[in-house]
Amino acid sequence: MAVQTVATHTDLSLGPAAALSCRECGERFPLGPVFACEACFGPLEIAYDLPEGDPEELRRRIAAGPDSIWRYAPLLPVPADVAGKPNLNPGFTRLVKADNLARELGVTGGLYVKDDSGNPTHSFKDRVVAIAVEAARAFGFTTLSCSSTGNLAGAVGAAAARAGLRSCVFIPHDLEQGKVVMAAVYGGDLVGIEGTYDDVNRFCSELIGDPIGEGWGFVNVNLRPYYAEGSKTLAYEICEQLGWRLPDQLVVPIASGSQLTKIDKGLRELIALGLVEDRPYKIFGAQAEGCSPVARAFKDGHDVVRPVKPDTIAKSLAIGNPADGPYVLDIARRTGGAVEDVNDGQIVDAIKLLARTEGVFAETAGGVTVGVTRKLIEAGVLDPTLTTVVLNTGDGLKTLDAVAPTTGPSAIIRPNLDSFREAGLA
Amino acid sequence: MAVQTVATHTDLSLGPAAALSCRECGERFPLGPVFACEACFGPLEIAYDLPEGDPEELRRRIAAGPDSIWRYAPLLPVPADVAGKPNLNPGFTRLVKADNLARELGVTGGLYVKDDSGNPTHSFKDRVVAIAVEAARAFGFTTLSCSSTGNLAGAVGAAAARAGLRSCVFIPHDLEQGKVVMAAVYGGDLVGIEGTYDDVNRFCSELIGDPIGEGWGFVNVNLRPYYAEGSKTLAYEICEQLGWRLPDQLVVPIASGSQLTKIDKGLRELIALGLVEDRPYKIFGAQAEGCSPVARAFKDGHDVVRPVKPDTIAKSLAIGNPADGPYVLDIARRTGGAVEDVNDGQIVDAIKLLARTEGVFAETAGGVTVGVTRKLIEAGVLDPTLTTVVLNTGDGLKTLDAVAPTTGPSAIIRPNLDSFREAGLA
Repeated sequence: MAVQTVATHTDLSLGPAAALSCRECGERFPLGPVFACEACFGPLEIAYDLPEGDPEELRRRIAAGPDSIWRYAPLLPVPADVAGKPNLNPGFTRLVKADNLARELGVTGGLYVKDDSGNPTHSFKDRVVAIAVEAARAFGFTTLSCSSTGNLAGAVGAAAARAGLRSCVFIPHDLEQGKVVMAAVYGGDLVGIEGTYDDVNRFCSELIGDPIGEGWGFVNVNLRPYYAEGSKTLAYEICEQLGWRLPDQLVVPIASGSQLTKIDKGLRELIALGLVEDRPYKIFGAQAEGCSPVARAFKDGHDVVRPVKPDTIAKSLAIGNPADGPYVLDIARRTGGAVEDVNDGQIVDAIKLLARTEGVFAETAGGVTVGVTRKLIEAGVLDPTLTTVVLNTGDGLKTLDAVAPTTGPSAIIRPNLDSFREAGLA
Repeated sequence: MAVQTVATHTDLSLGPAAALSCRECGERFPLGPVFACEACFGPLEIAYDLPEGDPEELRRRIAAGPDSIWRYAPLLPVPADVAGKPNLNPGFTRLVKADNLARELGVTGGLYVKDDSGNPTHSFKDRVVAIAVEAARAFGFTTLSCSSTGNLAGAVGAAAARAGLRSCVFIPHDLEQGKVVMAAVYGGDLVGIEGTYDDVNRFCSELIGDPIGEGWGFVNVNLRPYYAEGSKTLAYEICEQLGWRLPDQLVVPIASGSQLTKIDKGLRELIALGLVEDRPYKIFGAQAEGCSPVARAFKDGHDVVRPVKPDTIAKSLAIGNPADGPYVLDIARRTGGAVEDVNDGQIVDAIKLLARTEGVFAETAGGVTVGVTRKLIEAGVLDPTLTTVVLNTGDGLKTLDAVAPTTGPSAIIRPNLDSFREAGLA
């Protein structure tokens, strides 16, 4: 594993972030653009000095903050004045009370959809990239980079443009034109790599270790510990939008698994700070059957996640070797949740179900979470009498192909009333 | 002009809406699903009994309201409890302080982009449709309908789904598949009409006059007076987000012209209520050169707008015979603004300029307003030392074709450092 040797920083303005801490051995390191433990090669995450004092005062402070993730700046690795810096101000997206969907699914305890398609580039990636941008600024990086096949490319391009950073994003050279346009329109450098997505990632690792990569922040590699913390804001927002209350059950998609683990971390922080009551919650992980290594391990009772070769329409979740898989298994088991998967047909059905009942057009990843919710209710695993929050992390406009073959006009008619009557829609 | 004969309502729960009033002769009518004056066939609009009292108290009431257009319910034709009804809760979108774009354009007085791509279906149409839904409920309509070639179809389908209304949307049968999918995914009826968009509109007028159309609310026909008021919320939000301050200059796109006239109405209401200081503002209208009948009339000093046949990539603005054209001319002249147009190349350049500087990917309509802003500054018409707000009313994901031919990778390389060096991007 390539650990970049850089000067570490002790007087960084990254708010309550105190250090990097190894998730495996607990060893602590100064804040810096590193992502793996020098001692055991375990993944590093941010350790905080979180604010102390009256929870009611902290709630007031948050409520008086901006309508974006920056209202939670006191709990994030960002400078206190972050809201005044040029960034995309993502977050504080709608928590939709999904009463129509609840009726269809038989949920009586309150069903909510956290709809992250309202973010600036229409996926939750804006949250994580916004935190990575602040880390990049703190470490003096001038180029923001990533490998991507979709949402992340646009999020990085847009955030870098607004922040005044150069961006250089790497993609497989044979992506569909629509995705290439979304990644390129923000004017940064977009480099097509002749090879697979794995080849792109290998090339990026090489670049980080090379002098060319000096001054480059790869949001999901050397800035990963910071980047990943952005997902905590989903937990914060859900609880605040529920009136500073924990939901009983959450259904979260799994790609690398990072988002699910950080949502759990966010919920535990809120409890520790006294912002919500300390009571049990269950986290359910959702995968597509065509890329379900974590669901497989959960069902088989394994602690180890065996990599798979993805084959699913839910491309934003298609990570065959999810780095945080074992942590996801821990959380699902510790909280009394589960990990389940649905097939492509069920994903499409669930996208349409959510659109038809709530007017929310989700990306395939949203079809995965809604589909898994339905499946878990039918199986008696998810309790329909409890408050449940389902995540939609992206936008249907970006995965039109998934529903296009089965979505079209009810009728084609001539422009007159007789023709309309004949169509049987009057 | 077809005036639907229906029972009118005097005890409707439509908040401060008091009556319908003719914009031409001033005649007043009870609230109902009618859109043209019985006396002179002029267009009807809502007359209000607006709240009286301390502006500071009203500002506090608004600030304590929901993060959607419903914070302004006391100023809209909607019931007081609207926020508790199932709807998409549009609005309160980001007002982006566009310092990077300001530098490029030489604006020193503060430049802002009101980015309505953050709405639930990613265009400002969610605002107007949300108001139409409340009118439909009040009048007992059970089907929500419209003719559309784009944004409106999705907005109506989504809003009806969530509100539990049936929807039936009419489109030309030969639309691109992507647009058909966006209109059909919400599960309402979508009817393709063999004919042009004009044929679709003629058919809808016929339907409103026929018994089949009883119980049907056409958002932009028989519900138009209510629907149109939704655009006022853009004015309210801009002023509140500026700290209850009027901008000096606004640049607004023109399709039918309704949005621009309602933004002016909203600003005048805020002044009348004492919510903002009474001082001059200028409104500038923006059209695409391929459909610029209002800009033409403005430049020629005419009061009459001569219809044109649209031919532009800005399809959401392609209304050749804009109903509110004369009112737009009045407002531009009265406020000291102007109406200008840009060609397709300038629209594409402006989309890219906004994306590159601020990370905002706009629909072609946003390219029109940004392009016109640039043109008016260069011409010395728009004053760069004054506070200026430019509207982006839609999302670039919906008009990818506009930028696709000129947007792509900087380089295609093999997955190694030598190949990357050769590309000159290191």
